[in-house]
Amino acid sequence: MSDQVKIKTENLRQFTKMILGNFISEQDARITADVLLAADVRGIESHGVARLQRYISGLKQGVILPIGEAKIIKETPVSIVADGQGGMGQPITCKIMEKCIEKARTHFMCFASIRNSNHYGIAGYYTKMALEENMIGISLTNSAPLVLPTFSSEAVIGTNPISIGIPAQKHRPFLLDMATSTVPRGKLEVYARKNKPMPDSWATDEKGIPSVDPSLVLHNMVHRIGGGLLPLGGGGELTGGHKGFGLSAVVDIFSGVLSSGKLGKDVYGEKGKPAGVCHFIGAIHPDAFCGLKEISSNMDDYIDMLKSSRPAEGEDYIYVAGEKEYRNEEKNAQEMWLQDKVFQNLRDLGKEFGLTLPSL
Amino acid sequence: MSDQVKIKTENLRQFTKMILGNFISEQDARITADVLLAADVRGIESHGVARLQRYISGLKQGVILPIGEAKIIKETPVSIVADGQGGMGQPITCKIMEKCIEKARTHFMCFASIRNSNHYGIAGYYTKMALEENMIGISLTNSAPLVLPTFSSEAVIGTNPISIGIPAQKHRPFLLDMATSTVPRGKLEVYARKNKPMPDSWATDEKGIPSVDPSLVLHNMVHRIGGGLLPLGGGGELTGGHKGFGLSAVVDIFSGVLSSGKLGKDVYGEKGKPAGVCHFIGAIHPDAFCGLKEISSNMDDYIDMLKSSRPAEGEDYIYVAGEKEYRNEEKNAQEMWLQDKVFQNLRDLGKEFGLTLPSL
Repeated sequence: MSDQVKIKTENLRQFTKMILGNFISEQDARITADVLLAADVRGIESHGVARLQRYISGLKQGVILPIGEAKIIKETPVSIVADGQGGMGQPITCKIMEKCIEKARTHFMCFASIRNSNHYGIAGYYTKMALEENMIGISLTNSAPLVLPTFSSEAVIGTNPISIGIPAQKHRPFLLDMATSTVPRGKLEVYARKNKPMPDSWATDEKGIPSVDPSLVLHNMVHRIGGGLLPLGGGGELTGGHKGFGLSAVVDIFSGVLSSGKLGKDVYGEKGKPAGVCHFIGAIHPDAFCGLKEISSNMDDYIDMLKSSRPAEGEDYIYVAGEKEYRNEEKNAQEMWLQDKVFQNLRDLGKEFGLTLPSL
Repeated sequence: MSDQVKIKTENLRQFTKMILGNFISEQDARITADVLLAADVRGIESHGVARLQRYISGLKQGVILPIGEAKIIKETPVSIVADGQGGMGQPITCKIMEKCIEKARTHFMCFASIRNSNHYGIAGYYTKMALEENMIGISLTNSAPLVLPTFSSEAVIGTNPISIGIPAQKHRPFLLDMATSTVPRGKLEVYARKNKPMPDSWATDEKGIPSVDPSLVLHNMVHRIGGGLLPLGGGGELTGGHKGFGLSAVVDIFSGVLSSGKLGKDVYGEKGKPAGVCHFIGAIHPDAFCGLKEISSNMDDYIDMLKSSRPAEGEDYIYVAGEKEYRNEEKNAQEMWLQDKVFQNLRDLGKEFGLTLPSL
């Protein structure tokens, strides 16, 4: 694989942390590096260290502030409203999630709606924090407006992911982490590079008509001509696109309406100003319901039932949410591959701070 | 419209309540009739009085028990686990939702996971109960296994709907109520009657290969040959079908895993035995977050933003979740149309109990 470079996972983590440490506290740099690495090792490269350059630019330009803690605006035994004050999404969200988990130990559950934050990496990271404490986790975030409401040609909603995790016993926990658009923008880029037509449920042309031409759609997105990604289910209502739109709106609402933050096209709405990304996270203690022992054992039975269903012709395996990512995690624990382009960008970035990223 | 019959909505409600009153208490009959009518007036006919015959058969055969109240198995300030004891889904769920709303007044939120219940009608009914008290509502239920996991050819999960509602001020509340399959089975029946090919993201043949032949798929479903409905996003992963599958599993988990109830293909798993349907419902007080005034006003702004986005070519209106159903509700408040077949079935059912349903 000549367009990929092999590195030690731990080296990449340290390198990322050291670079971030020039702008934010060591603790916040450690958290942010951990969230970025979690994406790469889980195989979600679009949300990994490839984003570091963008974070550093944001910190330099002052559109991301070197703040790693949210201000608590309101608190009840089971809920939090917090203001990220334009700071780094990862440490802000991580610390509030720790608070949610702590409160859920006493009060059975706690949910937080956070406004004025920034890109927080993969939604599933925070869900996993709850899973590691044997709790049920939830994590939602709004994001840059790239997606069309049903019957619209104007991208005013984000790819707004939903992540939900539930502990199991013999199986790894169920861990859903999905954008509410059919695909992320990165998928179009892959198809454009290969000059390959895409399915017509992914995106539309500038008139809002489903398109199979990824280059056209990307050109229109970059130049803000119109059109964009389609919600899960595709265009119109015939194949359920209004459902994906509805789910995307729910994510916006829990993240931004409940916290009185930015919504829809106002997220990243003013160039040079803080993005105002909003999140919704939470933890539910299993004792709120049938308790960990029963719930995790029920989960095992359920996962077994799903996996033992008869495969479709040509298939031989039924995947459960999170399974592919767990496999990547194991594979990439010690060493991992980086796209050559990403590796070179990181090296250039490192030079600026007198840091080197060794390859294997 | 010669295949439709016009009736007074109030007459249909009374008629439905009187028939049910032969089996369950007057209060429970009133609640059940109200939930069924809510479906019809909102235009979701598949979940309306057309189901009455099936409920009555179930009650006669003892697979639905004449019980209208769940047994509380566990309770915390913010959660309930309840056992429906094989009773009627509507009164059971309605009473537990009232309890959730009551508890949310004091403790900011309450969620209930209910096992051993039956079909509870439209998910959105219970969400709406929360909205009427100016709270945020959620309602999920598992259901008969008609849907395929991604890469499977065996229907082991339900159409498992998700309903979420959030209060607004000048606008009607946001009210999402969607199956997590691309379409419900009824949509295939409509296409089969018209001999029309269906989109290939709706269902598969017996081998799990997407099919455009609704008659074939329905035949296979009735005779349990294999195949079934596809999750939202369609077959495989290319168009996001694994996301619909993941969401459907989440509904099963919150309804049946948290309550230690029936899951997946075990729901309606034994003929002649109680179905064991499970639900998850809950209410969140706006004071848990930014309060009703801010939240409902934020919702107005958000809905305005979505609706004012530029329509796609050939379209002129952006719908928000629940909007079409509110319009139907207004239209059908006094008088409504019933399919002639449904009307005749109800008349036949009425004769059995000495009741008549007058048409206009």
